[in-house]
Amino acid sequence: MIRSCAHRQNETVPVRKDGADTIVDLKELGEFGLIDVLKSDTINNPASVVVGIGDDAAVVLPTPRHLQLLTTDMMVESVHFDLQTTSAWQLGYKAIAVNLSDIAAMGGMPRHAVISIALPAALPVDFVVSLYQGMKEICHEFGVNIVGGDTVSSPHGLVINVAILGEVEPSRLQRRAGAKVGDVVAVTGPLGASACGLELLQRGEWEALDFAWPLVTSHLTPQPQVQLGQWLAGMMATSMDDISDGLASEVNEIAKASEVGLHINAEQIPLLPALKEASGWLGKTALEYALYGGEDYQLLFTIPREQFGLLKADPRGSQLTVIGEVVHRSQGVKLRDAAGGLQPLAPQGYNHFR
Amino acid sequence: MIRSCAHRQNETVPVRKDGADTIVDLKELGEFGLIDVLKSDTINNPASVVVGIGDDAAVVLPTPRHLQLLTTDMMVESVHFDLQTTSAWQLGYKAIAVNLSDIAAMGGMPRHAVISIALPAALPVDFVVSLYQGMKEICHEFGVNIVGGDTVSSPHGLVINVAILGEVEPSRLQRRAGAKVGDVVAVTGPLGASACGLELLQRGEWEALDFAWPLVTSHLTPQPQVQLGQWLAGMMATSMDDISDGLASEVNEIAKASEVGLHINAEQIPLLPALKEASGWLGKTALEYALYGGEDYQLLFTIPREQFGLLKADPRGSQLTVIGEVVHRSQGVKLRDAAGGLQPLAPQGYNHFR
Repeated sequence: MIRSCAHRQNETVPVRKDGADTIVDLKELGEFGLIDVLKSDTINNPASVVVGIGDDAAVVLPTPRHLQLLTTDMMVESVHFDLQTTSAWQLGYKAIAVNLSDIAAMGGMPRHAVISIALPAALPVDFVVSLYQGMKEICHEFGVNIVGGDTVSSPHGLVINVAILGEVEPSRLQRRAGAKVGDVVAVTGPLGASACGLELLQRGEWEALDFAWPLVTSHLTPQPQVQLGQWLAGMMATSMDDISDGLASEVNEIAKASEVGLHINAEQIPLLPALKEASGWLGKTALEYALYGGEDYQLLFTIPREQFGLLKADPRGSQLTVIGEVVHRSQGVKLRDAAGGLQPLAPQGYNHFR
Repeated sequence: MIRSCAHRQNETVPVRKDGADTIVDLKELGEFGLIDVLKSDTINNPASVVVGIGDDAAVVLPTPRHLQLLTTDMMVESVHFDLQTTSAWQLGYKAIAVNLSDIAAMGGMPRHAVISIALPAALPVDFVVSLYQGMKEICHEFGVNIVGGDTVSSPHGLVINVAILGEVEPSRLQRRAGAKVGDVVAVTGPLGASACGLELLQRGEWEALDFAWPLVTSHLTPQPQVQLGQWLAGMMATSMDDISDGLASEVNEIAKASEVGLHINAEQIPLLPALKEASGWLGKTALEYALYGGEDYQLLFTIPREQFGLLKADPRGSQLTVIGEVVHRSQGVKLRDAAGGLQPLAPQGYNHFR
């Protein structure tokens, strides 16, 4: 499931070229020609697809007695990505990954994707093909069908929107609401790597720094925790959320939705050794990236303490880490520092328009 | 269902203002404040919504023994719309309408929408609120729930993406494939009005021209044929498509998917009197708009001739018009002119990147 790091690293070189490099550009190929190129290898679970790409709407077969999950995310050039620091393949991979993470956070199974892209007319076709290859790769990994979309032109910059339809058994549905006083708060993996990776990408000349690679990889091709999300949902997690806007923001989301307080222990937050090294080099603390950075796409969840013991006894639970406890609402959302002092943990994180 | 023309006409004045006109702008309000403003009045069919706006994904209850329909459309400023000629309200209305039309073309019932918007930071909040009011209005008309979305910033221009989840009973599913030799070809309403309306909007100073109003209205707030689509599906239409890219393009889509030929009679294509008047004034023919204009969002369908008689005997069938017949594939896709001459009808229409 997890692809080799070396393969990903080869993808980090920018691939945007001007039209002169390519024989075929979008103007020559046209919208319908492009759709023909893109629609191969889009069905990974044919039994659930009645009509894929090519009619007015996709037609899919829902699993009986399941709830349907629907989520969407838009990525805008110069806001969510910079074509100087991501390849087309990585961008496609990530555009799907961030949506799969939302399905994972509900305890669900992603099933079908529809993809809209607004493309500058001068973009070479090989860029677009590579973008779709990244999408097809992750869809193949997770058994997701690409069943439709919209391909339009853009006067300024690339815009990608993905909508994913997923499914979940009613008893396994996970929400942000549901955390109970006394539950432990836990995460599925290390935090802060993506935000630090972004900062390294923006500074440039990071390739010679060994510690940079896992961080940059975390940022460019995040791994949605789909299997863990389903397992945790079956193991009676009481609330769940994916960490897209930074830990501080997400613990506040769970606190608000569940009407509880959460106390997070700074020393328990899992951090990659590379993040500690990089943050020292950048003159920051690893904790800042973990709390406020965002785009980690790990899952944050709450679960009764005894139940967490069962998780850790299972090989699948090896990467789970307790980082705090659920407390009464009156005790607030706070961070406990190394000396045991509690300070308020405000929901700072990435916020569009500010 | 159909709103008064006068009300719509009042909406045609541009409403984009610079930030200085408004007390609250997006920067002050922030992403989460904006979402709070937008999420009221979004649920029109509460029985099918388990979780609406506010968690990682929406959770909805499918109707047992129905197929799910999924479609998406993206609208980009300066490509799909011009804020000098559409109001925010109309734009929101249309962004949903074009997606509902895709569900209608499958014979389905639209159920749930997720909406992504990339907003320039300088856009006033009242513009965004009005945009959502247009969306909420049409969702209310058609019983569609707005269950989620993504609100992000844009460095250049407004981008709107809508994805709609619909449902259809398996026996009522309509596709582009299925037309049979001997079927009649029919449409649900007049064609060409939208494209001519767009041309009038682009020329400007159309308000004093009486014939312009229904055409401009057709362009700015198209009416998706959801009820007719479901009825036709139940009455055994053999193929169906919505007319988004112009009649010439859509008849070729049905011919290709169904592996048949289609002969269209130019004189039978329904045209608004206002279109005839406007096209004369513009120095074109009404037929050009109907064949190549697009964005009519009427339905094109095929059905056995005797079955069409039953449709016309029903009050709901009053606006249905036969425009041709399905012929053997070897006879091609052709247009029969007033003198009875047949000429090839090529799939010209709007094509991005060309």
